[in-house]
Amino acid sequence: MKPLILITNDDGVTSRGLRHLAAVAQEYGEVVVMAPDHNASGVSSSITFTRPLRVNLISQEESISIYSCDGTPVDCVKIGIEHFCTRKPDLVLSGINYGSNASINTIYSGTIGAVLEACIKGCQAVGFSLLNHNPDADFDACTPSIRHILSYVLQHPIPDFTALNVNIPRLPANQIKGIRVCQQARATWKDILEKRIDPIRRPYWWLSLKLVCGNPPHDSDEHFLAEGYVTVVPIQPDFTATQHLPSLKNIEI
Amino acid sequence: MKPLILITNDDGVTSRGLRHLAAVAQEYGEVVVMAPDHNASGVSSSITFTRPLRVNLISQEESISIYSCDGTPVDCVKIGIEHFCTRKPDLVLSGINYGSNASINTIYSGTIGAVLEACIKGCQAVGFSLLNHNPDADFDACTPSIRHILSYVLQHPIPDFTALNVNIPRLPANQIKGIRVCQQARATWKDILEKRIDPIRRPYWWLSLKLVCGNPPHDSDEHFLAEGYVTVVPIQPDFTATQHLPSLKNIEI
Repeated sequence: MKPLILITNDDGVTSRGLRHLAAVAQEYGEVVVMAPDHNASGVSSSITFTRPLRVNLISQEESISIYSCDGTPVDCVKIGIEHFCTRKPDLVLSGINYGSNASINTIYSGTIGAVLEACIKGCQAVGFSLLNHNPDADFDACTPSIRHILSYVLQHPIPDFTALNVNIPRLPANQIKGIRVCQQARATWKDILEKRIDPIRRPYWWLSLKLVCGNPPHDSDEHFLAEGYVTVVPIQPDFTATQHLPSLKNIEI
Repeated sequence: MKPLILITNDDGVTSRGLRHLAAVAQEYGEVVVMAPDHNASGVSSSITFTRPLRVNLISQEESISIYSCDGTPVDCVKIGIEHFCTRKPDLVLSGINYGSNASINTIYSGTIGAVLEACIKGCQAVGFSLLNHNPDADFDACTPSIRHILSYVLQHPIPDFTALNVNIPRLPANQIKGIRVCQQARATWKDILEKRIDPIRRPYWWLSLKLVCGNPPHDSDEHFLAEGYVTVVPIQPDFTATQHLPSLKNIEI
C-alpha cells in the first residue's frame, strides 16, 4: 500500500508553496491536502472551538484530494486526520512556507503548529519553509532537499513525540551545501508597533517585526542557514525548561 | 520605586480571573492591565500583523490602569510593554485562566503564549490557571499561592529566557497541600469533531476536546495537581528536542 500523506500549511490552500510540496509528495504516496482557506500565518498552535468548522472539496484526482477549511493549521490536521483520511496518515507535511521558520519564528508559526499537532497525534511530521517571502519564490530549488528528507523519514521513523522543522536557504539548488541537524537558535524580534492616526483621528498600531539574533551559535539553525545549508531541527511539544528544575525547587512549600 | 506589573490573559478583559489577579498584584506594585477585548482562549502564541491593533482605555486609577486591545495575548504583551508601560515591567503576569494549562494544554494556551512572549522580551513572567471552567470559579482560593509565588519571584529572578506556568487545583485554600516544581506531563487530547448538518443541509464540524493523560509520571504537573498541589513548571520558548539530535544525524548530507 502506498504511503498516505496529509499536507497542510499556514499560507492557505492557494499557496504555490503548498502546491509544490504536494507535487513532490505525490512521488511518494497518496496525498490529501487540508489547508486553511485563508492566510493563517502567525497563528501558532491556535485551535477553533467557539464556532464550527467548514470544509470545501476543491479537487479530487486519483492520487490527490484537495480540501480547504476555514480553521487554523492545527484544526486542519485534526479534521484532516479524523474525517478526511481513510486511515492514519503515514506522514503529515506542512508548507512549503513563504519565509523562515527558524529560531524564534518557530513559536509563532502556524506551519510549525501543524507539525507539532501531528506528532502529538502520533504521526510522523515535517514542516518545510523557504527563506523567501516573495511571490516569485523559487520552490523548485527546494525539491532535492525535500526528496532526500521524505525518502529518509519514510524509511527511518522520526523519534516518538517529535517532529522535524526544516528550513531551506534562499539559494539555487546547486549552491545548497547540504543538510544539517541542529538546534533552534535563540533570538528575539525587535517589534515595531507603529502608531498611526486613522481618517477619523483615532490611533491604531501596526505590528512589524525584525529578527534580532546576534551571533548565532555554531550548532544552531540560523548559523547553518547563513552558511548555505538546509537545517533540520527536531522539535517537541514539551516546553519544560528541565535545566532549571533544580534551581527553582526553593519556591516549593 | 514600586515594581511595575503588566497583566494580560486570554479569557478577555472582563474576566473575573483577570480582575482577581490584578487585585492581588496591586499589593506588590503598580499595575497595567492590557488584555484582549474578547475571549482569545486557545490562540497559543498567535500574533496579528495583517491588520492594525486598537487599544481602549477602560479605567485609570492611581496604581492601576486597565486597557483592552483587539489583538491576541501576545499582541497585548508586545503593545503593553512598548506603548503603555512607562518602563520595562518588572513582572508580566497572565491569568488567572479559567481551566487547566497543565500538560499538553500548555501549547494551545493564549495565557501561556503571553508569558513566553514576555520572557522572550527579557521580562520575568508567570502564568496562573485554575482548574475550574465554571463562571463561579473560586479565585479567592488561589490568593495564598499567588502571593507566595509573586513574593518569591520579585526577590529571586526567574532564570533567563524562562517563564513559570502555574496551575492551581480546584480546592479550598486550606486543602491545597503545597507547591511543587515539576515537568509538563505528556498528554494528548482526544478530539471530538462532531459532524452536524445546518438548516440549509450543509455539513459543519464542531471541535471539543478531552484530555488523555494515562498515568502521569510522578514528577509531572498532572500528577501533583491530582494530589492537591499547586504546580510550577519552568517553560522556555525553545522547542528543540535536544535528546534526539544525535540519532537524527544520519539525515545529514
